[in-house]
Amino acid sequence: MRVYNFAAGPSTLPLKVLEKAQSEFLDFAGTGMSVCEISHRDKAYEAVVKSAEALVRELLNVPDDYAVIFVQGGASTQFAAIPLNLMQTGVADYIVTGNFAKKAWQEGQIYGTANKIGDSSDKTYTYIPDVDKLAYTDGADYVHITSNNTIFGSRYSKFPKCKAPLVADMSSEIFSREVNVSDFGVIYAGAQKNLAPAGVTIVIAKRSLIENPLKICPTMLKWKVQDENGSLYNTPPAFAIYMANLVLENLKELGGVKAMQQQNEYKAALLYDFIDNSKLYKNNVVPEFRSIMNVPFVTGSEELDAKFVAEAKKAGLVSLKGHRIVGGMRASIYNAMPVEGVKALIEFMKKFEKENG
Amino acid sequence: MRVYNFAAGPSTLPLKVLEKAQSEFLDFAGTGMSVCEISHRDKAYEAVVKSAEALVRELLNVPDDYAVIFVQGGASTQFAAIPLNLMQTGVADYIVTGNFAKKAWQEGQIYGTANKIGDSSDKTYTYIPDVDKLAYTDGADYVHITSNNTIFGSRYSKFPKCKAPLVADMSSEIFSREVNVSDFGVIYAGAQKNLAPAGVTIVIAKRSLIENPLKICPTMLKWKVQDENGSLYNTPPAFAIYMANLVLENLKELGGVKAMQQQNEYKAALLYDFIDNSKLYKNNVVPEFRSIMNVPFVTGSEELDAKFVAEAKKAGLVSLKGHRIVGGMRASIYNAMPVEGVKALIEFMKKFEKENG
Repeated sequence: MRVYNFAAGPSTLPLKVLEKAQSEFLDFAGTGMSVCEISHRDKAYEAVVKSAEALVRELLNVPDDYAVIFVQGGASTQFAAIPLNLMQTGVADYIVTGNFAKKAWQEGQIYGTANKIGDSSDKTYTYIPDVDKLAYTDGADYVHITSNNTIFGSRYSKFPKCKAPLVADMSSEIFSREVNVSDFGVIYAGAQKNLAPAGVTIVIAKRSLIENPLKICPTMLKWKVQDENGSLYNTPPAFAIYMANLVLENLKELGGVKAMQQQNEYKAALLYDFIDNSKLYKNNVVPEFRSIMNVPFVTGSEELDAKFVAEAKKAGLVSLKGHRIVGGMRASIYNAMPVEGVKALIEFMKKFEKENG
Repeated sequence: MRVYNFAAGPSTLPLKVLEKAQSEFLDFAGTGMSVCEISHRDKAYEAVVKSAEALVRELLNVPDDYAVIFVQGGASTQFAAIPLNLMQTGVADYIVTGNFAKKAWQEGQIYGTANKIGDSSDKTYTYIPDVDKLAYTDGADYVHITSNNTIFGSRYSKFPKCKAPLVADMSSEIFSREVNVSDFGVIYAGAQKNLAPAGVTIVIAKRSLIENPLKICPTMLKWKVQDENGSLYNTPPAFAIYMANLVLENLKELGGVKAMQQQNEYKAALLYDFIDNSKLYKNNVVPEFRSIMNVPFVTGSEELDAKFVAEAKKAGLVSLKGHRIVGGMRASIYNAMPVEGVKALIEFMKKFEKENG
């Protein structure tokens, strides 16, 4: 029986996509080979990479002067790639709104002066600092943000208007809401939440910014090199890109990012409304900054939280345990989580509250 | 119809493995999720990573004081990771026996003095320099070799006996012949030839060598960090590791590396014997250094080569076109290429020679 999977990533994928991948797993596009076996230089496979790039451009309205590349190593590798590609003067600003934002900032310190100009750790990252009141550094190479904080369930309700190029880790929300790409210098995202299985990372970067990577930048981390080679500088993570392409095709069929945003806002509203009106469950994030992708909640009792997670699993609602830093529960309700899954979770929460409240 | 796929990588995988992956693609280990969806922190998935590591250790007899890690980015990323992890004194030796060996050497130059102590480009990389007569640098941090040259179809018949730790790119031959791991400081390999689909890279490194990566080494490229976290420092390329585990289980069932080496030597002998006795086909590699994985051959006529590749494809023998640097044909006959595939190729070559010789 297929479960509802609320994992923070890797996470649920559209069933339709999985079924298609399964059906052609031994014979990709009539080639007599699995997509796992075909040469990345084969025209049938090159078409997949080109299609995936074109769909990213179309679905996010990416301007032509931006590179769209598929790389490896997850957002964590990009934490180094960002300064290695962009830190020409050696100074950058970071806004620290969660665990991964902090890791990105720490990695930036290896390569230059990484100024922490905002920090919401004083209230366990339950809010986003007011981006209009931060002391941006004059002449900084970039300002780095994590647009959606997977662990803490917060997100930017508006983005910084800064002179330096804005660099955003959108791993846990890319394709979930409309963004204006030209407001950013770089957008990057590990695929394993809204895009594909783990193993591929997407980078969208304004080409004029990536001309001069640092000399010590590994060739494979040079965005310019990946861009010039259409993500085929070396053997790409072929299966993950293939799956990304299927997910993007599916997203387009469903009406694109705008339609997905409406559905995501609807799902999130259902869950937050229920939590706010319940006596047992609590979400601590300041409402303006609540993520529509990751919804953490607690009962106030660690024992009860553990019981909740265990009983939910028996009911086919899995991976609801919160991150160890936050505790409690977390429901990740990415693009591929159907409305029915959120409704099933709420029904279970009601029942559990009745029995344990 | 399933073809015989002679691609240099990504390349053919065991049909049995593909069928198993397909059969459980929607429901991994009874979890009600695809292996593409399950959290990498789920016990059912962690067991896969642990099993894959244990199988690598068992099948290659890896000593306990060596790390075995799964990382991303292909061998090309390791070209940077090698100096970034090992170049403490800033000097290393490289033996350049092909295209990738050269790329590794060039990447080494970014981070220190990379001495080219051997080079077989004078004869289009058709041999391996005599490793007993090279001028190894005193006190070098390591000596880098590419043990099997995918493009040129050559391999080391014996390995350097040097004071510095030997670092070997075994991408296109790992698990194909027995090696004594303790003769090496580091062995690394992109998975997409003998191990798994593209997207995961294996690194086997003596722990005492990897304690002090350079300060500028990206955290994700620090082998020590990956080792300390059991390859789960961040989200791993989960599907590729899962497939690697299935391939390794299959290899064990088939009798391990020793049995595979026997079969590989048999397949290679069939093909080289036929080529050497034919009037049309020629392999230019010095016999002692002929690869048992990649077998390039030419007819001497570019036109005839192109005809060969096209007609072979029609006969279900695909991806036989040689690398653009070498031209002609190349048959990659990795572990997963059955003896029947090699025999079918030879039969086709006979027929083609009769018609065109």
